[in-house]
Amino acid sequence: MKSELDIRSQEMLPAVEAEMRAVLKANNGTPDLFYGMMHYHMGWADANLQPAHVHAGKRIRPLLCLLVCQAAGGDWQQAVPAAAAIEILHNFTLIHDDIEDVSPTRRGRDTVWQLWGVPQAINSGDAMFALAHLALVRLLERGVEAPIVVEALRRFDETCLRLTQGQYADMDFEKRDTVSVADYIEMITGKTAVLVSYSAAVGALIAGADSRTINHYAQYGLELGLAFQVIDDILGIWGDEKRTGKSAATDIITRKKTMPVLDGLSRSTALQELYSDDTPNDDFVPRVIAILDEVGSHEFAASKATTHSENALQHLHAANPVGEAAQALNQLTATLLHRDF
Amino acid sequence: MKSELDIRSQEMLPAVEAEMRAVLKANNGTPDLFYGMMHYHMGWADANLQPAHVHAGKRIRPLLCLLVCQAAGGDWQQAVPAAAAIEILHNFTLIHDDIEDVSPTRRGRDTVWQLWGVPQAINSGDAMFALAHLALVRLLERGVEAPIVVEALRRFDETCLRLTQGQYADMDFEKRDTVSVADYIEMITGKTAVLVSYSAAVGALIAGADSRTINHYAQYGLELGLAFQVIDDILGIWGDEKRTGKSAATDIITRKKTMPVLDGLSRSTALQELYSDDTPNDDFVPRVIAILDEVGSHEFAASKATTHSENALQHLHAANPVGEAAQALNQLTATLLHRDF
Repeated sequence: MKSELDIRSQEMLPAVEAEMRAVLKANNGTPDLFYGMMHYHMGWADANLQPAHVHAGKRIRPLLCLLVCQAAGGDWQQAVPAAAAIEILHNFTLIHDDIEDVSPTRRGRDTVWQLWGVPQAINSGDAMFALAHLALVRLLERGVEAPIVVEALRRFDETCLRLTQGQYADMDFEKRDTVSVADYIEMITGKTAVLVSYSAAVGALIAGADSRTINHYAQYGLELGLAFQVIDDILGIWGDEKRTGKSAATDIITRKKTMPVLDGLSRSTALQELYSDDTPNDDFVPRVIAILDEVGSHEFAASKATTHSENALQHLHAANPVGEAAQALNQLTATLLHRDF
Repeated sequence: MKSELDIRSQEMLPAVEAEMRAVLKANNGTPDLFYGMMHYHMGWADANLQPAHVHAGKRIRPLLCLLVCQAAGGDWQQAVPAAAAIEILHNFTLIHDDIEDVSPTRRGRDTVWQLWGVPQAINSGDAMFALAHLALVRLLERGVEAPIVVEALRRFDETCLRLTQGQYADMDFEKRDTVSVADYIEMITGKTAVLVSYSAAVGALIAGADSRTINHYAQYGLELGLAFQVIDDILGIWGDEKRTGKSAATDIITRKKTMPVLDGLSRSTALQELYSDDTPNDDFVPRVIAILDEVGSHEFAASKATTHSENALQHLHAANPVGEAAQALNQLTATLLHRDF
């Protein structure tokens, strides 16, 4: 039997996809390279700019936006331009992140800079940034009043600013010897949580919700984003390879400073020594995991994940979502917070 | 005696500077590096983030915006956030252009990427792009109505999109054997003219001008931008070194494909051969200039400059600017179109 979430997704996501294609001019045959690079990145074209259907992301943020709009009593169709803007913005940040992180591949395909060079990739990202804003302005065409559109745009650019602050912190951490858990939470707030928060808040804003309700949805999204990231960190070390689809040890092998590791580093000099020694070491992974388990970093991260999850659920409850969309929203939240850590 | 333009500039530009400092958080002592990179680029800080006052651009676009607002019967103070947004946007594009063009210096100083690396410079530009939008939203605080603010934002992002299309074309030209004069005009329209056009149009929009008047100001700005760029191309070859401040031969030595050269290449196989031969040649510059003069490329470019200048003046006249600001606007236009080519 289909869940309410499945039913809503199958109705809403094609509308978002159509809106994004309209904004990114993807309905007129083979694009020139200017739009072609964007179509490739979105999964709509292959490297020769021929039509393709590549899985390019789960579109969770736009779905969240539309579900909140409906659960807050609005017409989700009115919010489709905002959902499209959020997904285009998210994809723009990935193009620039891939350059900044020197990542040659994403989701098993060459990245935009790898195929067309850094200069064109920077410019392509900038163009998508502008187009994300133009997507948002299309709210007017769906009958959203100008003061609401301006507020949606103001919050959008506050969110963009926080995203760049998160990215700044992430790059800065690579040069620092010590990073506190508090610094880390500040960083993932910018890199992950603020856009999830915006997705929920703008849905409620377009639905015409009062400021108290909008604020609860914003906090719900923020806590949901934080919980999701910390759970991801935990699964990156202790997760079941078959379920997560990535090798459990990856985050340890790449010495990624995720929350459990940062907590462990603050508690164990043995772990600090292990991480400061660059020579390859066959039992590096089991030794790191043994220390993390011993000093309680697994429990520490799990308790953080629990706290943020519970905060998210409390704010969602306080926002008082209604109807079938509320059911779908609860299902989406449960999926993102899968509680087997 | 001070000109009307001098009087207006000295009143308006400090207001723009103060607005930009408020948006870029430049009023609270030594900034952290996140804002520090922007302050450096704006000329407000040195490479150690200590306060500095470096000449960093003539701020012509914001001045044009405010003069048009006043000449169209508006209160220029209301348009200050738009003027600040335009200058911040312009500066963001320079940070990314410097990376894309691998330019180590700008105005005699190291570029942002040269000092802090490509990843941070990309991100710093992205942050300024978001802040430029937040500057524009501040129009609300000056009493501009929400529908006008949304329209200002819509036109802003249409302009940003055209800027990236111009930059795309500019980078694409470097890989192409032949570029037509028509392609070139399309490229400089995006790279230069659309932002000048926006500067004028948004001033009229905020003044509450009717759509016919706004359109004349938009066309005036577009033609002014095109004329300015073509005149710059002419001065880059035949200009008086003492007046232009740069060596007259620079554009020839660097083999820059400006309008006179593109016209010459389309008329002279001798010039094509000269440009396809990469070996250093002492009489390269005089030979190129001799050919350009002979085939009429100097006159061709001069006639294009004249046409765009006259179009600009006609649209300005049709927009019917009033008062002392009109006088200043005419003086600014005359300065930008100095007619000694």
